Amino acid sequence: MTPEFNLIKNHFTRPTRHTNLGVGDDAALISISNGMELAISADMLVAGTHFFADCDAQQLGWKSLAVNISDMAAMGANAKWATLAIALPEVNEPWLAEFSRGFFACADAFNVDLIGGDTTRGPLTISVQIMGEVPIGQAIKRSGAQLGDDIWVSGKLGSAALGLAHLQGKIELENDALRASIHALHSPAPRATLGLALRGIATSCIDISDGLLADLGHVLKASNLGATLDLEKIPCIDLLKNSLENPQFQAFILAGGDDYELCFTAPTSKRETINLLSKQLNIPITCIASTRMDTGLQACYKNNKITLLKPGFDHFA
Amino acid sequence: MTPEFNLIKNHFTRPTRHTNLGVGDDAALISISNGMELAISADMLVAGTHFFADCDAQQLGWKSLAVNISDMAAMGANAKWATLAIALPEVNEPWLAEFSRGFFACADAFNVDLIGGDTTRGPLTISVQIMGEVPIGQAIKRSGAQLGDDIWVSGKLGSAALGLAHLQGKIELENDALRASIHALHSPAPRATLGLALRGIATSCIDISDGLLADLGHVLKASNLGATLDLEKIPCIDLLKNSLENPQFQAFILAGGDDYELCFTAPTSKRETINLLSKQLNIPITCIASTRMDTGLQACYKNNKITLLKPGFDHFA
Repeated sequence: MTPEFNLIKNHFTRPTRHTNLGVGDDAALISISNGMELAISADMLVAGTHFFADCDAQQLGWKSLAVNISDMAAMGANAKWATLAIALPEVNEPWLAEFSRGFFACADAFNVDLIGGDTTRGPLTISVQIMGEVPIGQAIKRSGAQLGDDIWVSGKLGSAALGLAHLQGKIELENDALRASIHALHSPAPRATLGLALRGIATSCIDISDGLLADLGHVLKASNLGATLDLEKIPCIDLLKNSLENPQFQAFILAGGDDYELCFTAPTSKRETINLLSKQLNIPITCIASTRMDTGLQACYKNNKITLLKPGFDHFA
Repeated sequence: MTPEFNLIKNHFTRPTRHTNLGVGDDAALISISNGMELAISADMLVAGTHFFADCDAQQLGWKSLAVNISDMAAMGANAKWATLAIALPEVNEPWLAEFSRGFFACADAFNVDLIGGDTTRGPLTISVQIMGEVPIGQAIKRSGAQLGDDIWVSGKLGSAALGLAHLQGKIELENDALRASIHALHSPAPRATLGLALRGIATSCIDISDGLLADLGHVLKASNLGATLDLEKIPCIDLLKNSLENPQFQAFILAGGDDYELCFTAPTSKRETINLLSKQLNIPITCIASTRMDTGLQACYKNNKITLLKPGFDHFA
């Protein structure tokens, strides 16, 4: 068997849970459950842009799938299938073994079948497409936020950016802050269960990948609304919370990106439901602001408007 | 609006035909018709591996989608939706305008909606995922060939490889042969209609992308069968047919790849049906061999076995 096909057979062919025909033919075949729409999202990760070329392969494998499951969560969709197209500079079996170990660890954790893809030669590039089911009409879109809705975020923001800054030598972390940040950067856990639970509760939702301002900005723009954020209300780890006047920390929280938390809106009538959900799922969910008439999106600290040099991650800015 | 999002809005957002929610949210939403399975396939094209970095952007756009629609045809699936993830070294609006022009020309020709994707910075890499519908149980797999089945191919083989050799300066073509070869290389027309028509007729099917020997080899291996091909029976343009003793030409026909014709098996009882189909669709469909007990796959010319240096395209061989 030729090397390319060996790669697929050795590293990317596993039994599936809910797939009719998996890896090995011209296409995979799946059936969509009755009453469901199929949600589809794609992401491309490039060495040098999204990850260091020499990063840990297992963590990269995990993260490649995790960031896509996060998009499903943001739609209230149940992630079920993925395809993986990967360009590699050369056949590196140990690297691939580690990468696939991480990828399938994530797939197993979230019940996702890898059903197809492609392997090719080229600069290290990873393209994942994720597919999931959501009951017809119940997908949580970006455009559904209503005037006066609460704006919520799950978990804590800014940790992944903090971890990246540490690895880049821009800051020096220790102990808990170091552990939390590096873990957040390398092994995000997409809020899959929360996403499903928000069906019928959230009026809009997005996962925070580029950064809170950028991503919440999309939601507000799509919904023709605005908001003013108070930095002190945004959940973050103690190291950040204790030095909010630090512009670098402000940027991590508001625009660091790579958080993979959910940011969603909901009517004020849902506050109790959401607080209960937070307890049931053991996930912090924090109300950070309310939507207003369209005045744009801004963030303040102690009543002073925060101006960031780079409002959010844009590959071509 | 930031440059990245401008790119998506300007070049990749178009009205859709059969999509519930298209480009613009965390995920797209589609509904699958009753009684159908969803077929899914993915391909990654890398500058320097699959195409010249300085190639015509419009042709590249067409071909990026066409090769994926070809995978759908090979399953007997009706291609309906695609996602496109693309890494670009820089924002090049004229290039993107041309690329998307070609991509959407193909999408329009084959009724495919572009429903999502990603744009990112990196070495030029294109990842397309295609999705289509096929009635439950009717997908044409690689593994269904039966002993004694006829083996058929559509169109003519070897032209794209001939065209590539010309562009690489390895051969000099003129007139009709030049036109046909360059067109085959740059603007393949996937056999979408034929693929649908083969439901209930073909026992197995594959599209010829890596090369006849490699791809038919997959089918025979999956079906536990073998075959011996007679080079003189394989359809190709006159320039090739008139010099079959030329080893370079033999390689173009048997292993050149990039043909995007369909190679399928069918019971001998279907010969009349297939010949009629050929007339109705105005597509040459040629019977080239029969399946045998598993003796591997080989090709002969005038009773001499042909040995090629490179049996088929493998990125890592």
